[in-house]
This record gives sequence, C-alpha cells and structure tokens, in this order.
Amino acid sequence: MEKEFLENSILCVKALVKEWSGNKQLSIESIRPVTDLDGQNIRDFIASAPQDSQSMYKILHSYIGQIKDQDIYQITSTIVEKYQDKILYYPAAQKNHHAIHGGWLYHIVTMLGLGEKIVEVYPFLNRDLLYGGIILHDIAKLDEMDANELGIVKDYTVEGHLLGHLVQGVKLVDKIAESIGADPEKSLLLQHMIASHHYKGEWGSPKTPMIPEAEVLHYIDMIDAAMYDMHKALSTTKEGSFSEKVWTLGRKVYRSSQ
Amino acid sequence: MEKEFLENSILCVKALVKEWSGNKQLSIESIRPVTDLDGQNIRDFIASAPQDSQSMYKILHSYIGQIKDQDIYQITSTIVEKYQDKILYYPAAQKNHHAIHGGWLYHIVTMLGLGEKIVEVYPFLNRDLLYGGIILHDIAKLDEMDANELGIVKDYTVEGHLLGHLVQGVKLVDKIAESIGADPEKSLLLQHMIASHHYKGEWGSPKTPMIPEAEVLHYIDMIDAAMYDMHKALSTTKEGSFSEKVWTLGRKVYRSSQ
Amino acid sequence: MEKEFLENSILCVKALVKEWSGNKQLSIESIRPVTDLDGQNIRDFIASAPQDSQSMYKILHSYIGQIKDQDIYQITSTIVEKYQDKILYYPAAQKNHHAIHGGWLYHIVTMLGLGEKIVEVYPFLNRDLLYGGIILHDIAKLDEMDANELGIVKDYTVEGHLLGHLVQGVKLVDKIAESIGADPEKSLLLQHMIASHHYKGEWGSPKTPMIPEAEVLHYIDMIDAAMYDMHKALSTTKEGSFSEKVWTLGRKVYRSSQ
Amino acid sequence: MEKEFLENSILCVKALVKEWSGNKQLSIESIRPVTDLDGQNIRDFIASAPQDSQSMYKILHSYIGQIKDQDIYQITSTIVEKYQDKILYYPAAQKNHHAIHGGWLYHIVTMLGLGEKIVEVYPFLNRDLLYGGIILHDIAKLDEMDANELGIVKDYTVEGHLLGHLVQGVKLVDKIAESIGADPEKSLLLQHMIASHHYKGEWGSPKTPMIPEAEVLHYIDMIDAAMYDMHKALSTTKEGSFSEKVWTLGRKVYRSSQ
Amino acid sequence: MEKEFLENSILCVKALVKEWSGNKQLSIESIRPVTDLDGQNIRDFIASAPQDSQSMYKILHSYIGQIKDQDIYQITSTIVEKYQDKILYYPAAQKNHHAIHGGWLYHIVTMLGLGEKIVEVYPFLNRDLLYGGIILHDIAKLDEMDANELGIVKDYTVEGHLLGHLVQGVKLVDKIAESIGADPEKSLLLQHMIASHHYKGEWGSPKTPMIPEAEVLHYIDMIDAAMYDMHKALSTTKEGSFSEKVWTLGRKVYRSSQ
Amino acid sequence: MEKEFLENSILCVKALVKEWSGNKQLSIESIRPVTDLDGQNIRDFIASAPQDSQSMYKILHSYIGQIKDQDIYQITSTIVEKYQDKILYYPAAQKNHHAIHGGWLYHIVTMLGLGEKIVEVYPFLNRDLLYGGIILHDIAKLDEMDANELGIVKDYTVEGHLLGHLVQGVKLVDKIAESIGADPEKSLLLQHMIASHHYKGEWGSPKTPMIPEAEVLHYIDMIDAAMYDMHKALSTTKEGSFSEKVWTLGRKVYRSSQ
Repeated sequence: MEKEFLENSILCVKALVKEWSGNKQLSIESIRPVTDLDGQNIRDFIASAPQDSQSMYKILHSYIGQIKDQDIYQITSTIVEKYQDKILYYPAAQKNHHAIHGGWLYHIVTMLGLGEKIVEVYPFLNRDLLYGGIILHDIAKLDEMDANELGIVKDYTVEGHLLGHLVQGVKLVDKIAESIGADPEKSLLLQHMIASHHYKGEWGSPKTPMIPEAEVLHYIDMIDAAMYDMHKALSTTKEGSFSEKVWTLGRKVYRSSQ
Repeated sequence: MEKEFLENSILCVKALVKEWSGNKQLSIESIRPVTDLDGQNIRDFIASAPQDSQSMYKILHSYIGQIKDQDIYQITSTIVEKYQDKILYYPAAQKNHHAIHGGWLYHIVTMLGLGEKIVEVYPFLNRDLLYGGIILHDIAKLDEMDANELGIVKDYTVEGHLLGHLVQGVKLVDKIAESIGADPEKSLLLQHMIASHHYKGEWGSPKTPMIPEAEVLHYIDMIDAAMYDMHKALSTTKEGSFSEKVWTLGRKVYRSSQ
Repeated sequence: MEKEFLENSILCVKALVKEWSGNKQLSIESIRPVTDLDGQNIRDFIASAPQDSQSMYKILHSYIGQIKDQDIYQITSTIVEKYQDKILYYPAAQKNHHAIHGGWLYHIVTMLGLGEKIVEVYPFLNRDLLYGGIILHDIAKLDEMDANELGIVKDYTVEGHLLGHLVQGVKLVDKIAESIGADPEKSLLLQHMIASHHYKGEWGSPKTPMIPEAEVLHYIDMIDAAMYDMHKALSTTKEGSFSEKVWTLGRKVYRSSQ
Repeated sequence: MEKEFLENSILCVKALVKEWSGNKQLSIESIRPVTDLDGQNIRDFIASAPQDSQSMYKILHSYIGQIKDQDIYQITSTIVEKYQDKILYYPAAQKNHHAIHGGWLYHIVTMLGLGEKIVEVYPFLNRDLLYGGIILHDIAKLDEMDANELGIVKDYTVEGHLLGHLVQGVKLVDKIAESIGADPEKSLLLQHMIASHHYKGEWGSPKTPMIPEAEVLHYIDMIDAAMYDMHKALSTTKEGSFSEKVWTLGRKVYRSSQ
Repeated sequence: MEKEFLENSILCVKALVKEWSGNKQLSIESIRPVTDLDGQNIRDFIASAPQDSQSMYKILHSYIGQIKDQDIYQITSTIVEKYQDKILYYPAAQKNHHAIHGGWLYHIVTMLGLGEKIVEVYPFLNRDLLYGGIILHDIAKLDEMDANELGIVKDYTVEGHLLGHLVQGVKLVDKIAESIGADPEKSLLLQHMIASHHYKGEWGSPKTPMIPEAEVLHYIDMIDAAMYDMHKALSTTKEGSFSEKVWTLGRKVYRSSQ
Repeated sequence: MEKEFLENSILCVKALVKEWSGNKQLSIESIRPVTDLDGQNIRDFIASAPQDSQSMYKILHSYIGQIKDQDIYQITSTIVEKYQDKILYYPAAQKNHHAIHGGWLYHIVTMLGLGEKIVEVYPFLNRDLLYGGIILHDIAKLDEMDANELGIVKDYTVEGHLLGHLVQGVKLVDKIAESIGADPEKSLLLQHMIASHHYKGEWGSPKTPMIPEAEVLHYIDMIDAAMYDMHKALSTTKEGSFSEKVWTLGRKVYRSSQ
C-alpha cells in the first residue's frame, strides 16, 4: 500500500479507529487524493488571516495612496507592485507570529493602522516615512523564505540564510530607489528603518534606530506581534485561568474572568 | 559678601563681565533676591511641559470619566484625587525623560492618547483596564521622589529607595481597592500592570506582562519616553546632521534634511 | 475497568508482572482505595522534612519569642499566627529545594539557626530585624502556591503568577503592620528585606539589599538552599565519585572518599 | 592676535616658555603657516603605516592578480579601482587599531599575508573567495568615515552612521557584481563574508559565518587588530613590565624580559 | 540469551531484518566476539585522525627540535616524553571537535602548522614561546579525561572535574620547569598561555592573554576547532545546500555550488 | 625648593593657609621628614584592622590547632608558617574590601569565626576541610600583590598579573602537599576550594564549587566582604539617611533611625 501523494494536497481516507494495548490506531482501508467532486477546499484546512487577502491588499494600497512625498511613494509602490503576487499569500514567519496564509499582509495592514494612530499623537513624525517604513520593513521576508501558495514555508532561501531579510531589504530599496532616481536621503532613511527595526545587535539589527520614525516602527512591530500571539493564546484559554506557555512570548498569559 | 539665599529662588545680580587669562569672569557688584516689584516669574526659568497643568488635568479627568467599569473607575479616581496636588507639578523623573515641571502629568496624558488609539486597532483589549493601568503605572513616582513645587527633584524618599515606585504602586492600589470594596481580580490586574510595566527583571520588573493590556502599557511607556527624548534632541539639532549622544537613549539621533 | 480515584490517595493494587517484547508490564487484577483496615499512612509515601512539624513550629516560636523590638515582634507573630495551619505542611517550592512536606518550615528554622550564629560574628547587625526578615521573607509562598496537606503543590495561584511571593509578601507585611499600628520604618525595613532577598533584578528582586540585614538574609537563603540540594545529592552518591548533574545547582557534586 | 589657520596645516610658532604658579605656559611672539621655504613635510607629523602606500598598493594588486575565479576577480578589481585614491591614505578607524595614514591598506595587506598562509594549512578553503573577502570586508569603511588626505577622520558620514560599513559593503558588492554580470552565488558569498565578519549580533554582524572562508576571515581580522595594538603598546613598554591599560584591548600587556 | 560482552570490542552478529508495525527490527540468531580468524580490525570501526599517529608524532618532534630557547625546549620535550603513550591515541575532547582517535595530536600538529605561518607574518612574535604554548596548552587534557586506547573517553577524571585542564596544565609546567631548573619567567609565560587560552572568564580562563603569543594561541585554537567542525559538516552536505545545525558551532554551514 | 622625600614616610610641614581667587592654598614655609624627636608613629596615619595583628595571629593558630585531619593540618600549618611575616601586615586588596594594614588576617580570622558557626548548623560539613579552605583561599594574595609593611599595595606582581591568586594558590598547595607527602585527594579538595571560591567563570573562577565546603567558603567570603564594606559605609552615615554610593557594592546603603 505504498503510494506517493503530493505534499500539501488533501487526501480522502477511509479508516477504522481501533484500539491496541490502550492506544488508538487508524486502520486504513482506502486512501486517495480528493477530486473536484469531493467539493473540498484546501483553504478550509489552512490557518489564514481573519481578513480576505484582496480586501487587505486594497487597504495596503489606500495607505500607499496617502503618501504625499513622491520619492517615498514611488519607492514603496514600485516594490509592492513587484511583489504583488507573494503579498497575497505569504505568511510573516515560518513558525512565529503570523505564520498563516496571508499573515505577512495582515501584519503590515494592522501595523499601518497603528502607525496612522500614533502619528496623530506625535505630529512631528513624518507620516510618509513611517508608512513607507512599515510597508517595507519586512518586504524581504518574501525573498528570505520559500513559501508555497498555501502560505506554508518550506525553508529559508540560500540568500535568506546568508544575509537575512534586514540586509536583503536594504539592498532592495537601494536598487529600486536608484533605478527610479529617488532622492538619496529618502532612500537612505527607509534603508535605515529596515536595518534598525530589530533594534539591537543581539536581536539582529546592525544599527539602532536614530530617527523617531525608526524607533516607532520597532515598537509598532513588537506590539503587533505580541497582540497576535496573546490574542491567539487567549482564544483557547478559559476565563480565570492561564494558557500554556506561549513559545514566542516565553511565558503564560492570563485570561481574566471579566 | 557672604549671604545665604533660598534654594530655588530667583536672584537679581548686577555684575561686570571681565576677562582674565582668556576666560570670562563675572565680577559681582550687587546681589539680592527678586521682589514683587521686579515682576519676574519663577516659571519662566523652569523647564515645563508644553501644556498647561490645569488643561492636562482636565484631559486626565475626561479619560477617567470614560472608564465604565465601576471598580476600575473607583480605584483610579480615588487615587488621582488623593494625589491631585502633586499631579499638577511633579516631573516624571529626576534626570531622564519628562524631568520637567508637570512632566508626570504630560507623560500620562500623552500615553492615554496613545492608549485610546491602540484600543481602536485591537478591540479585544479592555479599554477600562488599559486607561486605569496607564494612569496608575507611575503613580507612586509621586511618593518615590521628593520634588518641590517647581518640579525639581531633591532626592528619592527613603521608601522610594528601599522599595521603588513599582512596589509602592502595587501597595497603594491594593489598599485603596480594599478600602472601597473593589473586585479583587480587577485590583489584582491593575497591580500586575504596575508591577510588570518595566517588562523584565533586569529592567526592574518582578514579573513580565501576562495580560495584553500590561504588554501594551509597557510599549506605550517606551514609545512616549523615546518620542519625548528624540523630539527634544532634534529640536536643537541642525537639519542633515546628528545630535550629540543622548544619554537616556545611548545614541545620537539624526535630523533629516527634509 | 475505568474507575476514578482521588488524587493524592493511596491505592491497593493486586497485579501480575509480565514481560512483553522485553518490557515489563503490570497486569492489574484488582485496584481499590486503601481503608483503615489496611493500616497504611500517607506520610510513609511522601517525602518529608527530617524534623517533625510540631517540633519545628516550637523552634520557630522560640525565635519569635527572642525578638525584643515590640513592632517587629507584633508584625511577625501576627503573621505567623495567621498562617499557622499552612506553615505545618507547606513545601518551600514546587520543584526546587525543600519541595517536601514541611519544607517551608524546615527551611525557615534552619535559616534562623544560621542567622543566630552570624549575628554573633557581626554584633552590629540588628538581631530582631534579621529574625523577622528570615521568618517573613518567604511567607507569601504560602499564598503564591496552592498546595494540599501532603505538601504537594498543585499549581501557582493567580495572584502568585501575577505578582509573585516577593511583592505579595511586601503587601502582607504592609497591611498587617498598619493594622497593628507598628512603626512605619520597621515595617518598611522588613518589606525591603522581602523585596530584595533575590538580590538582583535578573534573579527576581526589584531592589538590591541596602541594609546589612537584607544582605545577610540573601546569603543565608542561598547557603541553606545549596546545602539542602548538595546534601540530598551526596546522600545517593558513592564515595569518591560524582553525582548526576543536580538540576537546581546546574552541576554535579563530588562525594570525597574520606 | 586672532587669526584663523587651516585645520591640519603646520604652523611655525615663535614663543617663550614661562612658568606661572607652577604651570608652564607658552607665551607666543609670532605665529604663521609654514611656507615651502621652511622645508617641513606634513607626513613627519602624522602617524603612518610602516610601509609606503605605493608599495602596499602593489602588494594588494599582486594578490588580486592571483585570483583565478573570473567573477571574484572582476568584482574585486573593479571595486579596488573605484576606490584607488582613498585606499592610498585612509586609516582603518577613527580611534581604534590602524588609525593611521595608510592604515586601511596596511591592515588589508597584512591580512592577505595571513590568509595566504592559512590556506596552505587548510587546502579545502577557497583561496579566491578568501582573498576577495579580505580585500572587500572593510571596503565600505572608505565610505563610512570622512577622512582627509592625512588619514585623519573628521567624522562618520550620514550613511556610515545610519547603515554602517557592513551593510554599505554588502550593497556595494551587490551593485558592482550585478553591473558586471557576475555569478550571483559568488557575489552572495562575498556579501555574506562582509556581513558576518563581526561574527555575532552583539558585535555588529547581522549574520554569523556559515562558510569556512567567512569564519577564517573573522579570525584573521581579530588577529591582525590585536597584533597591531599589542605591538604598538609593547614598543613603548620596558622589558619585564606591563603597559598601561590598552583601551582597545581592555587590558594591560606584558613585555617579557627576554 | 543474556551474555556479557566486553565494552569496546567487536561483535559478530547473525540476524534477520524483520518489519513489525512499520518499524524494522533485528531478529538476532547468534552473537559472539570476533576472533583473529575473522580478520577484523577495531581501527576500521573507530573514527581516527586522517594522518597516522606515528607520522604526526614525528612532525611534533620536528617542531620541538626547532625550539632554540633551551628552557622552553627542555620544558616542552620533557613533558611530551612523559606523555608519549597517551599522545598517540588520545582524542582532544569527549564530544566536541577532534573527538577521534589521535585527535589530540592531530589538533596540535595542525596548530603548529598555523603557528609557523603566522610567525612569518608577525616576526616580533617569539617563535619558541608560541611553539611551546601550542604544544602544552591542552597537554593536561590527557589527565583531565580518562580515555582508552581506542581514543574513546569514558569520563572525566576526578582532578579533571575539580580543576580542569587549564589549571592542571599550569601545575604540570610549573613542576616540570622547577624540577629541571628552567628560567622562572619562561615557565611563567608558558603557564600564562595555558591559563589564558580560553580568553575570557565566561569561556573558562581565569586570565585574559597579556602577551601577543597567548593572544595568537587563542585564535589558532579557535580557527583549528572551527575548521575541523566545518570541514566535517560540509563533507556530508550536498553542493548548494546547508548542513544540519552543527552542535559545536551552534549554526548550519553552507556548501557552495562551486 | 625641590627635595625628594621617601615614599610612605611622614613629613613635618610648616605652612600658611592663604586664599587666592576663592580657593584656599597652602603656602609652605618649611618641610622636613619627622625625626624620633617628633614622637610621631606611622601607624597613626594608616588605616588598620580593628584588632591587633599578634592577637589575630594567635586566633588563626588556635583554628589551625583544631584541625584534626593530619594531612590538612600539615598543609595548612606549613603554608601559614612560610608566610608568617606577610600575614601580619598584608591588606586583603589594593582598593576593595579590607584594603587596610592587617586586612588579610582580619578577613581570614572573621571568616573562620563564620565557618565555625556554620558547621554547627550543617554537621555533615567537613570542619577540617572548611578551616583549611578558608585559611588558604586567599593565601596567594600575599604573592599576587606587592605590599609594603604599612599594608599599602604598590602594584600587582608579574605572576599576580599573569596567573592571579586563584591559580597561584592552587600551585602553592599542590607543591607543599606533595613535599610533605600529604594525601593527594585532600590536597586536591583544598585546591578545588581555592580555584572555585569566586564561584563563576565571569567572576574569575575556572571551576564552580562541587563540594559543599567549597560552596560555603564562597558565601562566607561574600558575606564578610559585604559586611566589612557596609559597616564601614554606615559608620559615616547619619541615622535615617543613605550613604554615598559604595563603589565595591555598586549601591548606597541605608542607616536606619533605630
């Protein structure tokens, strides 16, 4: 009964649950790939972002449309266009936060929402730069990881391993900005935001934020990752009790009884 | 010509600037405390928050008024009332960020603005708890430091040295909550937010945030401290150049030429 | 044959040892809770302190009786009385040193013995304060953990998780001291000793010891925990050889051949 | 007598040494820039590499000439040509090791000598890659710092501050390699060597070496920096005694009496 | 069928491979120690250094023969003679790099090759001291570990556990040097090289290198350990892909497709 | 008026205090070394241990006399005899705790008092080993530092710099023990206690304590150093206030108002 099936496909299995020595076993009678007639949708078996990719993509574009600085607008929109396919299904990580179909886009769009609010509180922040930085800070994750259209990461790419998405992102912005003749300082500021968004050397950044937009970008990133993980953990925790230890947070979280 | 003058008072000095061996010297002819006739205001000589304390205090109260949970409302409003005098002039620190007249209140009010926005992005957050946590997280700084009405910290209090404002704040909330018969869990959650707002043991917190409102509180605090310090440093930096190293940030900041 | 038995009860099992595929198996014929007729004592199945709880409790009281300062005496004796039931059976930890029936009391009593000796060497130490600090430093472990009368910890309490026994202990002393009208500074010094007994932020203390009694308390605690763990490990190690790695110590210990 | 003189120029001063209150003072009678007639050479006043820049440059080229891989040869030689002016006078640092006229070139040439030897011991190392990596690992220091022709660094450039020579170097190799149509993997390996040559995040590298040539590059760099600093410190230390603490090494060095 | 066989002996097993529940099993029919008639050599089953021990030992002696300083020569040759048996088969570690038959000698001989080259680049280094330091830096591993003639470490010795090979090596050199009346400073310098070759306290050295020969010794040791581990990992990795994570390096290594 | 005076001698100075530009100045009229006629004693100008050296030396000997194990007794008494001169005046440090005339002996004698008490609490401890370890743990400080008979350290010795008193102490015990034919394991245990008394690599110990006597030795050392520093700081602090920051402790200490 040795057959080979496609990775990431749905199988239809007919089997009997038996018990042997206290353990349940599956005694398989037949196994075959689903056909169109089965009416199954792979999406139903895949963890996905709570919002539809197309809707989120529209939101992303509406934020790009608000960027008034022509250099930042051109750099950002050119790069987003270049990656428009992957943006619709890539996760934001292989295992950590937002490791779901459409997770990359969901993370970015939520961060843009946060950024929009924070600029209202600190009007001296450069809104265009912050939007550009948010959209581009993880753009090279789309090159760092090799994911299929289900949003499942098979592995890191060779360049992803050897350079990482921070350095890859800097190179990408640098080249695109040069190719469209953008103002060098604006390109540099975006590159700095990408390079510094992990904040410290020991957390992966070769430089610490030196402009307020880069500082804010880091914290927006941290907040959204933590909120994602905490919300997910709490959704399977009973009121008045603690979750299991959440691996990405390194601790348990508490769901209050209110 | 040895007289003693009051600390933190304004003096009127009549003097001649001379030069000796390349250094300028002040040759004092007369020196006396100012009188009402001089028409000087001590506030003009003191770094103060950009907003008027009374206006900020009204904003603080409007946020308290939005807290719907009666336990959290009672705990927060009772404590704020108890500290209403100090709230109007205390700085948030002896030397670091917001070390200015009214700095404590300015920090809290700005953080409330941030919290209000962030709850809009993550509606599963408990708004009442977040507001309460923001208002109370540094409340015991008013007991930890001994400041005069000019907002200048003379020293830490004995209890401030021996326990610190995190532990002092927990004790305060615990006692007030008990005295007004508040729900124990709500009191506990506020205490946890105070105890964990420095995030890690090595940064001073005996516990790490275990509820999302505590996690967000930490980052709001970090963002507002950094924005304050960066904005202040950039305001005296020329376009296209770097500031001096900012002591609280441990780095220089860059003012772009845009 | 699915029955439910009480957790932490003794069962009488009649079974046959069989071997299948090289592994021994227990083939159960009958299983039932023990009855009085069986004459079994749960204590025989539970790791316990080497001394009887009642005897240790008397020793504890004799040390309390030596406290001459009325404020410290009142605070300490009031709290000990409040916890007198738990004191008789609580362990000092869920897994680490002194995780045995009566372990909390055994740890405290041994530490008091150490403290008594050390004061003789450094007579400038305040004996009353040191005794009070030793007795109260871990008092809130009785609230932090949820243990049954066998001295087995089921879990940490919600407040234990969210605040921890250092902060809980400070609150407890603060309230009791206030309720009996004790001198505020003496209460504060005891609170400082509780808060600082883990010594550093990264080890869990929000403050470092600032009085010599707090410094000594920390080291007495370290010595007794290490002696307990080393003695336990060596008792099952052959002369002239090393123990297995002791988890709490992070190393092996050597039993000399003398 | 207020005149302005050019920074980094030689002045001819006529003065009298006087003593006032125990301190020696220089009483200047006349001061003027040197003219050609004075026959002074700025080089005599500037710390310089022990070898002549032109000779070192020839050695550099002889190593480039040994690179057999055409992609690595093209990338390396194109970049060296582009920076040929600065290479002749740049220091390797503002303050640390090799902070001298020609220091950058001296550091690289010595490292090449080391690399040549080490490949003989480990023949599985790719010699071409190692030579390319050595030559390019610090190439962007020529862009990171703003130095004059005396080899004195005035400041870091804006891009130097915001990205640093590791990221700048990766970008440079990436662009040059692409422009000359070099094999992408060879370009990537050189970029990885640049990015990882500080070894760890906390030492400034976004990636740790993952190929043996990158690993060796790091240690060659460390050896040459340490040998430079130790040799310099020992040259002013008496036999049988210790130097002052060397800032870059964080310790004293000992000159044996042999 | 319970027999006891000698540890580290070769067994001749006759068995049938069966499959049960998807797992392969070995069904043993007969098992016995090999006899001379079987013509098996234990060496074929043991990982060994790529060079023959006798040849490597000759190389070691040729380096000793190059030491001109009589004190260093005497100390080194006396100690090597004393350990000549173990030197031929000891590994350099129980589990890490060079944990193979003859691994200790292979590590030393390769390091001597490196040292020889590096002295050519930095002629101010004392060649005799460096050779002596390389040969003796790990000499006490032969006392620290208890290995059999197959180069397999059974355990650490008691003294190895309680002092470690750095301190043991210092004591050894000290005593031998004294017994042969060697110059005290030369003995001391060799002891310092042994004590400092792990570089930092947290890496196991009670002192940091304070002479350039000790500094270089550390890096030679690091390079050879890394080259051994990387070369070994790459030899089982396909071109253009990454190895599994190498435990001793804490990362994957990449084998380029060239 | 340039004369040279002996270091560490007393001078008799006749001078006038003048004031110039607000600063007080000493206008020296005559200066000369004291003579016997002046009746001054250098000891009055030197910080010394609170006990007389001869008395402390007797106490030390009484502890040695209590060591029943003949090997440990012989090793300890032989070494103490060898260093009997220095023991009477050496400080325990150049700058830190017990940096006073007789400080080494004062530290040891107080630690012995502590050790005596602690063995009473933990009778499984080997008293002989603990006494031996306490007496010998810092014995090589007498070789590590170069102090004069006033107890003032001029510098570290060359061997002190290159090996440190932990390694020097191990060598010393090893040689003396061998010379008197002591039991090797007892010698080894004493060496382990010396080597591990700084507890961790980053605090200077190449090995962590693996016997309970070594563990206790470390804590006795820490307690006595802290008590010395705290007591000294508190003796110049007013009741109810904090000391200046104590350099060796890294914090202020509080003197309670009791």
